[in-house]
Amino acid sequence: MVKRILGVDLGGTRMRVAVLDDEYRLLNRFEDLTRAYEGPAVVIPRLLDLIETALPDGAEPPIMAIGVSSPGPIEPRKGIILSPPNLPGWVQVPLGRLIQERFSLPTYLGNDANVAALAEVYNGAARGHQDAIYITISTGIGGGIVIGGRLFVGGGGLAGEIGHMVILNELGEVSTLEREAAGPALARYAVRRIREGAESLIAEMVDGNLDAVSGRTVGTAAQDGDPLALETVLRAGRLVGYAIASMMHLFNPTIFVIGGGVSTLGDLLFDPIREAARAHVLDPAYIDNTPIVPAALGDDVAIIGAAALAFQQLSRS
Amino acid sequence: MVKRILGVDLGGTRMRVAVLDDEYRLLNRFEDLTRAYEGPAVVIPRLLDLIETALPDGAEPPIMAIGVSSPGPIEPRKGIILSPPNLPGWVQVPLGRLIQERFSLPTYLGNDANVAALAEVYNGAARGHQDAIYITISTGIGGGIVIGGRLFVGGGGLAGEIGHMVILNELGEVSTLEREAAGPALARYAVRRIREGAESLIAEMVDGNLDAVSGRTVGTAAQDGDPLALETVLRAGRLVGYAIASMMHLFNPTIFVIGGGVSTLGDLLFDPIREAARAHVLDPAYIDNTPIVPAALGDDVAIIGAAALAFQQLSRS
Repeated sequence: MVKRILGVDLGGTRMRVAVLDDEYRLLNRFEDLTRAYEGPAVVIPRLLDLIETALPDGAEPPIMAIGVSSPGPIEPRKGIILSPPNLPGWVQVPLGRLIQERFSLPTYLGNDANVAALAEVYNGAARGHQDAIYITISTGIGGGIVIGGRLFVGGGGLAGEIGHMVILNELGEVSTLEREAAGPALARYAVRRIREGAESLIAEMVDGNLDAVSGRTVGTAAQDGDPLALETVLRAGRLVGYAIASMMHLFNPTIFVIGGGVSTLGDLLFDPIREAARAHVLDPAYIDNTPIVPAALGDDVAIIGAAALAFQQLSRS
Repeated sequence: MVKRILGVDLGGTRMRVAVLDDEYRLLNRFEDLTRAYEGPAVVIPRLLDLIETALPDGAEPPIMAIGVSSPGPIEPRKGIILSPPNLPGWVQVPLGRLIQERFSLPTYLGNDANVAALAEVYNGAARGHQDAIYITISTGIGGGIVIGGRLFVGGGGLAGEIGHMVILNELGEVSTLEREAAGPALARYAVRRIREGAESLIAEMVDGNLDAVSGRTVGTAAQDGDPLALETVLRAGRLVGYAIASMMHLFNPTIFVIGGGVSTLGDLLFDPIREAARAHVLDPAYIDNTPIVPAALGDDVAIIGAAALAFQQLSRS
């Protein structure tokens, strides 16, 4: 019998709901703005109604479960949204239970980067891999770790926060991977170098208003060959490469997948990542059979991941 | 029925063999010098004879399997010793198969730090924990990761090499945790500071011959209250603490256990480790329920771990 899952992607900007079959095809799709500022008491009833609309009537193959992707941090085992920066004012929201009670279907909650890792393993760039690490680099750095084909959340349920690896930067300051290598870090580093006197296209692109420089500005300048922008991307790539080398020694997975807005810089970013990782492994065995590849899934990654989480949990129970 | 395992600890200096019961009690114990320089063709027959001596005769409860601890790196799934720095000249030695063929018993090989992690979980400081990370700090830094009560070796079998996490040091140089925080790093850092002009007991302790400074010299001076030695231990502790914060975000285990010679410095080392980790977690939930404690097992840790590995593999199959 064909199994179907309802996937929910509650994002900071948009909420999306779809029914998926067991080959992760979206059979329908409904969407609304999240308007998180209205607060959970208003937004959640709208989300429940959207799910109601998407749920098929009795005649079709039944829905087995509901998988939900939410901004983190969350408590995955209890289905609780804790207090995500991307959902300001949402604190300790038991979204899993609310959905489960309304629809009487088993409901599983995962954080967006975690379920994206599952999506890439089940239906994306890491298909066929049992041990994969997914990193998303955009305004922050998030991640998800798949071990033995299953999402790894650790003894306390909070594992996979790759962006919060603690590192020293080149000035010897204690920092985190996210603070040094996500989009805003590209802007911060380039602006600091310009203020120190470095020449760059970037200053012209923002008409001298350095406060307006974003990670995207730096990325565009790098694609235009601006030396400072290239240096900035190279630096971020190297830091991500060191973190990947660390994770190769810790997890020894068989693939790394990198997504998120910054990853669209392509080889400008991937070359230094791969070179830095290769230069710092204890033995070539850590990297020779472990490609570092771009993510394959686009906008639907969270909804596919939410469905993958639900399928995984169903097969466990 | 009482189950028994034969545990083997092949160390760089000593080889030890013992029969253990399923409560990890050593029922006997035989020991010899390894003399690794004689090469595997000489040492392995001596090891096989030592195992023969330890194996009980027919009347007793039978031995179910043999667990072997070896210096790493190894290929755990194939039971092959690759080319450990602590066994110079040993390259691609199929120790697991050699033991298995001689005694017709299932034989499992693990690296010493990995099996020590299992030993601490099954019978030491992490008893009762399912998700634990063990770090040993001595002349190098090794580790072992236990997930769901089982030794985690990763998709390629090489996981848990905590000492090879890649970090920048305070000078902005790319380095590894081991190179910055193991025993020799204590000596290196203190000597560099003395050469830069720092006053310290350490110089007197070696009669001005700074080449003779070891990690132990620095530890002794720290215990005597020498400010430079204390600064050196504090620095190493902080670096280990940052690495632990990183691993809390990646693995979210329920306990960290720290062993090895340097860990005998006690609170001088553990205080900065704990403070640095706590100061850099994203949320107190990562550390509030995750103690960082000293190892509980002594000389027999590897032999107990080898037995634990064998019990674990038997229960899997």
